[in-house]
Amino acid sequence: MTQKLLIENIGQLITCAGGRKGPVAGEFEKALGVRKGGCLAVEGGRVVAIGERERVVRQLSPGDFESVDAEGGLVTPGLVDCHTHPVFAGDRKEEFELRNQGASYEAIARRGGGIFSTVRATRQASAEKLEKLFLQRLTRFLAAGTTTLEAKSGYGLSYEDELKILEVIRQSSGRQPVELVPTFLGAHTVPPEFKNKRKDYVWLLTERLLPEVASRRLALFCDVFVEKIAFRYAEAKEILLAGKKRGLLPKLHADQLTNGSGGKLAAEVEAVSADHLEHLSPSGVKALKKSGTMAVLLPSAAFYLRSPKAPPVKKLLTANVPIALATDFNPGTSPNYSLVFTMTLACVEWGFSAAQALLAVTRNSAFALGKGSELGCLSEGKQADLIIWGAQDYRELSYYTGAQLARTVVKKGRVVWKS
Amino acid sequence: MTQKLLIENIGQLITCAGGRKGPVAGEFEKALGVRKGGCLAVEGGRVVAIGERERVVRQLSPGDFESVDAEGGLVTPGLVDCHTHPVFAGDRKEEFELRNQGASYEAIARRGGGIFSTVRATRQASAEKLEKLFLQRLTRFLAAGTTTLEAKSGYGLSYEDELKILEVIRQSSGRQPVELVPTFLGAHTVPPEFKNKRKDYVWLLTERLLPEVASRRLALFCDVFVEKIAFRYAEAKEILLAGKKRGLLPKLHADQLTNGSGGKLAAEVEAVSADHLEHLSPSGVKALKKSGTMAVLLPSAAFYLRSPKAPPVKKLLTANVPIALATDFNPGTSPNYSLVFTMTLACVEWGFSAAQALLAVTRNSAFALGKGSELGCLSEGKQADLIIWGAQDYRELSYYTGAQLARTVVKKGRVVWKS
Repeated sequence: MTQKLLIENIGQLITCAGGRKGPVAGEFEKALGVRKGGCLAVEGGRVVAIGERERVVRQLSPGDFESVDAEGGLVTPGLVDCHTHPVFAGDRKEEFELRNQGASYEAIARRGGGIFSTVRATRQASAEKLEKLFLQRLTRFLAAGTTTLEAKSGYGLSYEDELKILEVIRQSSGRQPVELVPTFLGAHTVPPEFKNKRKDYVWLLTERLLPEVASRRLALFCDVFVEKIAFRYAEAKEILLAGKKRGLLPKLHADQLTNGSGGKLAAEVEAVSADHLEHLSPSGVKALKKSGTMAVLLPSAAFYLRSPKAPPVKKLLTANVPIALATDFNPGTSPNYSLVFTMTLACVEWGFSAAQALLAVTRNSAFALGKGSELGCLSEGKQADLIIWGAQDYRELSYYTGAQLARTVVKKGRVVWKS
Repeated sequence: MTQKLLIENIGQLITCAGGRKGPVAGEFEKALGVRKGGCLAVEGGRVVAIGERERVVRQLSPGDFESVDAEGGLVTPGLVDCHTHPVFAGDRKEEFELRNQGASYEAIARRGGGIFSTVRATRQASAEKLEKLFLQRLTRFLAAGTTTLEAKSGYGLSYEDELKILEVIRQSSGRQPVELVPTFLGAHTVPPEFKNKRKDYVWLLTERLLPEVASRRLALFCDVFVEKIAFRYAEAKEILLAGKKRGLLPKLHADQLTNGSGGKLAAEVEAVSADHLEHLSPSGVKALKKSGTMAVLLPSAAFYLRSPKAPPVKKLLTANVPIALATDFNPGTSPNYSLVFTMTLACVEWGFSAAQALLAVTRNSAFALGKGSELGCLSEGKQADLIIWGAQDYRELSYYTGAQLARTVVKKGRVVWKS
């Protein structure tokens, strides 16, 4: 396959590169950078020119290039899913049925079901089996338009099994087109064998696992689930700061089921993102603004759990805190592969506009992964990750459900998927 | 393509042909008719045998047959969508945004937006344009696993335009694989030019349109939207009985936004189905039971509208009223193509079990179209409409969102779609 592409016959191009630089907290339509018609040229994995055909072609080095016909359709940046738990064995479809009949997440967790059933299956699975399952899932993400995926560990919860998962993520990076951003989530919950020795588990994480993860360069981020049923404020702070000392940037699962002062903690450790936030307090909103932390909202987890409480979207907007959206893909509370469906949920359930939702799964989610200067938007010099959609207008993405809308997926300048 | 198929290497076969005959109102697991492994043979568009390979092959007439490898996956009947509004021009993505910011369906309708914007666009569109749009949509339905689709008119609301839509449905039947079941919904709402002459519009429907629709055999059903913003009880009864006299079986849009005694009316006209039913009263439940009317629930319309009220699912179950599910695909309140997503919504929002949901989009929805003896389940002699899924267990269908789960679609014994 040639390294030079010309995307031709574009109907509507959404660059996500308009307005002010950096993550977007308002003026969404401007930030979309909508362009009608034209072409986009790619070389060496990067966007080299956008605009009228004759001018754009001249920016390519001499010689043949591959032409890709957008058929008058919509082109956007590749979608960036900045919060997922995609490496595990088994599934939780029985639990899905139970919960729909009325059992709560916490009740299921306390009964030793929930996350621990996935931990058991994942510990028993070989790296080869986990990789096979993960690669199958990655083809679904790609078909849904996701070109960059944050992938957390967190279903091992032992020295060997957490490293096994992170190695599976590393191996899978080279074997398929989705760009993987690994996050160490040994602090997903306290495993049963440490139930009465919580301090020992925190020691295992900070003194044995984190140094190994850092020295093998297995993760960019360190994440902690801060919640009554998982880690307490002080424990989370200790783990996140230990990670930071080793070069792993902090992320938090914060204020999902109860208010655990997640905003305050995010500010204290200068987290890159604070995720979930259904119970974020007004002072938490201020704290996120102060620390420049991205609010990552996860509407499909809220959908599957039928969360009665929405995150404080309007307060975040008023405070100019940028918002990203992610699938939270996981077997228990969000078996959702699609950021397009995630956008629909954010629009219908939480009042997002189509523009706000699209920016939240491209430009802003790239910033939530520390990659905002590389990808998440389409302008000269950016990584050439893009989707040609079976749609004419970006607003169709969040409007329709149940359709395979992605037609062609380009990653780092190569066509990697076609419907 | 050969007319003989052998579906081999099935992992799990859901026949939807178990338990008692007829539509299913309980004992859902039994009615699923789950089978492990085996083959399914098809000839002349019908299922000729199910079971162990050697025995099944012997039921085919001598000569070559096409072998289809199910790769150990799940096989179910083709999905039957028994309530859609798929023929129209334009879309309503602006209205989608407005409503998400707080405007109500009724408020939008009263402002002359909503349905009338679709009526204007549909009247202006030629039959050729409408057919092109419809055919594009049908490819999306097919990819979602829908092999039979009820298609309503109702965006013409004039003599010429209602007939134009029904002719488009007839033309489209022969041009693609999805089986279309046409319904006359001239009584979708009263068009603006008849606002102060409601009686004249009812006369147009009963005395001019219904005779023409019947004589050209353009529809199997006659449907009325019974609601404050559409047709009143007495008007609806008059139209439905006029249709019945001409051989068009009655269907109702009933009790969606308010309680309009839809159950009672359904019983009076012996409707095949009563659809929506969010505000169905306890006496309405009894009436449906008495008349043997199928309750058709439309969770994606409720999702897009954020309906505060769920239909009385438990009361319907207790009263042994069978329930079908449908997408209600339409540009205003349910731009959802997928019965798989519809199943997820019914499970998450309304407490359906996976078995109940699957039966509601196959066997029961076939009965909601008067086709229960022909399709909607897989047993010897039934129409060979089936889906091979990228899944191992039927419960995965309602559990996952955002994935393209259908792998191979077979309609009347022919492979008509592959992912």
